[in-house]
Amino acid sequence: MRFTIEQKELIKSLTTVQKGVSSKTTLPVLKGILIEAAENYLKMVTTDLEIGIEHFTTAQIEEEGIFVADAKLLSGIIRKLPSRPVTFVMDSQQQLTISCDHISFTLHLLEKEEFPELPIVMAENSFKVPQDLFKEMIHQTVFCASQDETKPSLLGLRVETKKNLLRLTGVDGFRLAYRNCSIDNEIEAAFTIPVKAMTELSQIIPDTSDPMQIAFTDKQIVFSMDNTKLISRRIEKPFIEYENILPKESEIQVTVNRGTLYSSVDRASLLVSEGKSSLMKWVLKNGELVMTAQTQMGQMIEKVPVDQQGEDMEIAFNARYLMEALRVIEDEEITIKMINHRSPAIIEPVEGDRYLHLILPVRMAAAEEA
Amino acid sequence: MRFTIEQKELIKSLTTVQKGVSSKTTLPVLKGILIEAAENYLKMVTTDLEIGIEHFTTAQIEEEGIFVADAKLLSGIIRKLPSRPVTFVMDSQQQLTISCDHISFTLHLLEKEEFPELPIVMAENSFKVPQDLFKEMIHQTVFCASQDETKPSLLGLRVETKKNLLRLTGVDGFRLAYRNCSIDNEIEAAFTIPVKAMTELSQIIPDTSDPMQIAFTDKQIVFSMDNTKLISRRIEKPFIEYENILPKESEIQVTVNRGTLYSSVDRASLLVSEGKSSLMKWVLKNGELVMTAQTQMGQMIEKVPVDQQGEDMEIAFNARYLMEALRVIEDEEITIKMINHRSPAIIEPVEGDRYLHLILPVRMAAAEEA
Repeated sequence: MRFTIEQKELIKSLTTVQKGVSSKTTLPVLKGILIEAAENYLKMVTTDLEIGIEHFTTAQIEEEGIFVADAKLLSGIIRKLPSRPVTFVMDSQQQLTISCDHISFTLHLLEKEEFPELPIVMAENSFKVPQDLFKEMIHQTVFCASQDETKPSLLGLRVETKKNLLRLTGVDGFRLAYRNCSIDNEIEAAFTIPVKAMTELSQIIPDTSDPMQIAFTDKQIVFSMDNTKLISRRIEKPFIEYENILPKESEIQVTVNRGTLYSSVDRASLLVSEGKSSLMKWVLKNGELVMTAQTQMGQMIEKVPVDQQGEDMEIAFNARYLMEALRVIEDEEITIKMINHRSPAIIEPVEGDRYLHLILPVRMAAAEEA
Repeated sequence: MRFTIEQKELIKSLTTVQKGVSSKTTLPVLKGILIEAAENYLKMVTTDLEIGIEHFTTAQIEEEGIFVADAKLLSGIIRKLPSRPVTFVMDSQQQLTISCDHISFTLHLLEKEEFPELPIVMAENSFKVPQDLFKEMIHQTVFCASQDETKPSLLGLRVETKKNLLRLTGVDGFRLAYRNCSIDNEIEAAFTIPVKAMTELSQIIPDTSDPMQIAFTDKQIVFSMDNTKLISRRIEKPFIEYENILPKESEIQVTVNRGTLYSSVDRASLLVSEGKSSLMKWVLKNGELVMTAQTQMGQMIEKVPVDQQGEDMEIAFNARYLMEALRVIEDEEITIKMINHRSPAIIEPVEGDRYLHLILPVRMAAAEEA
């Protein structure tokens, strides 16, 4: 085997496929990248048995071949080579030599026969969404997905599409975030994708509005971009019927500057009791929101003028839940809808239904004790 | 007590004094910053009992007073306030209220009576050096100071001054780095300052060529900049007579591009054997330096043309020692002087004696085994 490729191009490709390498594995070959040189391209594959990434790039192939090299070592070496053509040669002893200018590395390879094949997904159904938009949608919902292994159905992001609408939803039992967008699509589908797959996917999506194809079977899903594919299993357990927990109407509504609110919550989270969550109490009264946080370290009080509709009320939140929701919203102004201190609060855009964040309040008694 | 200060000014001051806060301490008050409001200034003090930092800044004092607040919490709060005037008020219950715009924090304070007083250093001897130059000199030598607690005399940087020359030296038994500069000074002095004090000092030295005053007694040293002082004890054990280990003459001399050499050593360090240092073997022959590294992961070979004087030779080094020395040198070209594969190698400027790095070679047999 013998091929040559520009160092810069190779780095780009390795950065993409390396995301699929298993960090914790007892199977040594899963720490590797499989590289196949054929015709005028390189095919690179990584997998942790749950998620697989397949990537293609062009190269000058002089002799075809295939090998599996340690991903971390290979990336480390290529990253530290000069921006010049890099030549890969594999000899009959299955040793790989990487040459660039006056530099030459010889590496021991991993057993390519042990490298698992990615499943071949024969998907009949698919739809498309701009890549950068999908990346943004993941970012704005994935933090809400559960990390609680006892709730396996929530350990993923819900992807739903119906009548030109695409929605991503994350739920963890205390909060929920969804993000909508309109796409050109006639099929109706709903599936749950593991958080890890969605996180890796968002890391490899390039900043382009080119379409990503999302194709699926009963068991698998394939996200295809230009020259890269990510394949994941679907979570089979049914997702929570979250529409039922969204309050249908709200009596109290507040419109407030997102940045101001975020800064307040950020400051409140400085007052942490060891081992406890930071709590924040809101008193809404006469168009003013008074926010307080109190622990054994001290106390914070902030007053923010708001556009209030409905009665005065008091409510308390886990400051982290508020902060994580406010952090991913890009609007300058937001609307918060509340019913009472026991019912979930909703954060929405001032207009439209592009996104929704639901946060369960903390019982006031618990907030006082903290 | 009551005073007001601009948030931006306060952040600058806190960033400086916070470096002196004890990170690991059983004495809670050492996690604090002592702030004294008097006349038209604030005096801020932190100490870990070995090193003390004292800093002054102007503020609008309405009522004098003194308090000790948790350094991390105080800095965290001030950092997250808007860029506006911040007012501190301490009530008779020894509670501190910090107000800024619509925001108010109330903090519990630490016991100011327990805060240790910094030693008063009655220094008769002192000299001056530009602050930014001294910072650079610390950076270029401190990595060589020993971290081996069994060699207490080497756990510091040697500061020597004689006849308008100032030298900083770090030694750890395997390598040495010194850096010279000329200063306007007639006194002769030599002392050893703990690495921790030098590291903290380099972190608080501003980027200015204004003079730093270095004053000392038998036990203490005081570094004074504009409105900040750092006080440290001196290490009393005698420093190694390092002049004796510097080779007086060298038979083999190589002049080489520093960046090229650094990149090679950096690449060689990718091939690490678990739990062992990365070794690099050099073969100097006919004006070419062939560098190799070999572990169970693979092998690297690089060839670099050099300006060679003297015979051909082979020698091996710990790659990390080479890398750390080459990283702090700013010259484009350097000279490496060697005698044989058992004697220390010297890295020097092509001209002059601004700095010197000495590195002990690794025995070739050990290098082969690695």
